[in-house]
Amino acid sequence: MNFPEYYESRKKLIESFLIKQMQKKGISRVDEAMSYSLLAGGKRLRPLLVLATGDVVCGRGYDFLAVACGLEMIHTYSLIHDDLPVMDNDDYRRGRLTNHKVYGDALALLAGDGLLTLAFEVMLEQKNVAPAALIETVKEVAMCSGSYGMVGGQALDIEAEGKNITEKDLRTVYSAKTGALFIAAVRAGARLSGAKDEELLALTRFAELFGLGFQISDDIMDVEGNLDEMGKNAGSDAKLQKTTFVTLCTLEGAKELVDKTFSEALMCLESFGSDAEPLRELTLMVKNRKF
Amino acid sequence: MNFPEYYESRKKLIESFLIKQMQKKGISRVDEAMSYSLLAGGKRLRPLLVLATGDVVCGRGYDFLAVACGLEMIHTYSLIHDDLPVMDNDDYRRGRLTNHKVYGDALALLAGDGLLTLAFEVMLEQKNVAPAALIETVKEVAMCSGSYGMVGGQALDIEAEGKNITEKDLRTVYSAKTGALFIAAVRAGARLSGAKDEELLALTRFAELFGLGFQISDDIMDVEGNLDEMGKNAGSDAKLQKTTFVTLCTLEGAKELVDKTFSEALMCLESFGSDAEPLRELTLMVKNRKF
Repeated sequence: MNFPEYYESRKKLIESFLIKQMQKKGISRVDEAMSYSLLAGGKRLRPLLVLATGDVVCGRGYDFLAVACGLEMIHTYSLIHDDLPVMDNDDYRRGRLTNHKVYGDALALLAGDGLLTLAFEVMLEQKNVAPAALIETVKEVAMCSGSYGMVGGQALDIEAEGKNITEKDLRTVYSAKTGALFIAAVRAGARLSGAKDEELLALTRFAELFGLGFQISDDIMDVEGNLDEMGKNAGSDAKLQKTTFVTLCTLEGAKELVDKTFSEALMCLESFGSDAEPLRELTLMVKNRKF
Repeated sequence: MNFPEYYESRKKLIESFLIKQMQKKGISRVDEAMSYSLLAGGKRLRPLLVLATGDVVCGRGYDFLAVACGLEMIHTYSLIHDDLPVMDNDDYRRGRLTNHKVYGDALALLAGDGLLTLAFEVMLEQKNVAPAALIETVKEVAMCSGSYGMVGGQALDIEAEGKNITEKDLRTVYSAKTGALFIAAVRAGARLSGAKDEELLALTRFAELFGLGFQISDDIMDVEGNLDEMGKNAGSDAKLQKTTFVTLCTLEGAKELVDKTFSEALMCLESFGSDAEPLRELTLMVKNRKF
């Protein structure tokens, strides 16, 4: 397959959908703050995963754009709240000032709340699927985003700051904080496409490994990267004295682990044969990214 | 009808449901923070409105407990975020320390996020209704809670602080900030019960007036009430130099407006005859409340 072309066309679908969602004039300035962060570019990895998984299973991933973009809204809200002074207190994100640096803390808080809420509204507008399947899918997205998933992971992350934690603990934090939403994305794409049980199982395992690989490579970039490439400041983990895979395994060890994890992720796709190309290529792109 | 008995039995159903939702052991301390605020009592007005409206329309309001309690979670999250130092910076709520006073700002922020997310998960677990009707209902709840409803109203509220705004502006703020969620509650109860179009219309108008009456009486209590009765500090509007119905119409004028508004709300229920007793009595209870 021509992956660069595939990638660009899917990303364009996602960007257009997101822009369309933010076009309606709001009643307050919070919509502007929401747009500021949502339309700031970004890799769009979670919606891409929904679409690519849909393509792998049924060949019509673009049919699930509403659910896909809902996941991007959830991801974006989590970044806005995470960047707030009471959390990580970051100044840059996706190459521009963080939301609260532009709109102030109160409006940034509300912009996050607004995006999380909008995510559910948009996901529930998804056409092309049976209502019961949509309900199951969105319920699972909520579960993966909440206190047993992303929000719980962020809370664990705070609790772990400045403490020496084990690799097992770190894996728990990462699988909740970052992994859960990747799992939600892949499972949403699979479920909406009518995946069989064994397909869902293999794709879930793929998503777990994909998420872990992503997070370890994030740790590496926080040491090796720079603001120009990443659009955010590097070195924030060290600043907050966070335990990461780099502090636990050394930089070299972390790099080996990334290779191993992504390779295992790719193995989960074997049973799909050549149909799995979109997910396979997306995985390689993420593995080799510098941003 | 024996309203005190009705009220107690419905409140008990709501409390039990909420307790059951919070029983599962979480992966982090955020679940404890969520429980702290969700299980702190409170009037449970929004879920009561869902149940009472369901009783008025189809006599089986208790069938819609999951959606009802989802609305209480949304309300509670909004209080947690609203009390944060970057917003109203309040120390007391429902007779106890506010969430961030106990758990710190970061965990309180996440507890709010967790409750908003859990609300959607719980609502989508609602049984006893057709999937398509559930999707429509939850989508509307999201719309009323987001940047065109509650979140937008809170943003307008911040923008209005320290400014002289007109009564028209204040009505816009109130209808978004507080009214929208009451409308969502009543319409959810009605829609899930299979209300006819003209019933939905009358009940929506009822909810608008109910919400307005509630908010004006809230303004009055902020002047006349005290911590013991209300469970939160009075005088916070004056502290923040907020325009309220009391500053616009005087205390006496605001009281007249409350009477008028609740009377009009009751008139919207006339076509339901004696079936409307649960909503009628609930309205009178709210009108005469001191908390």
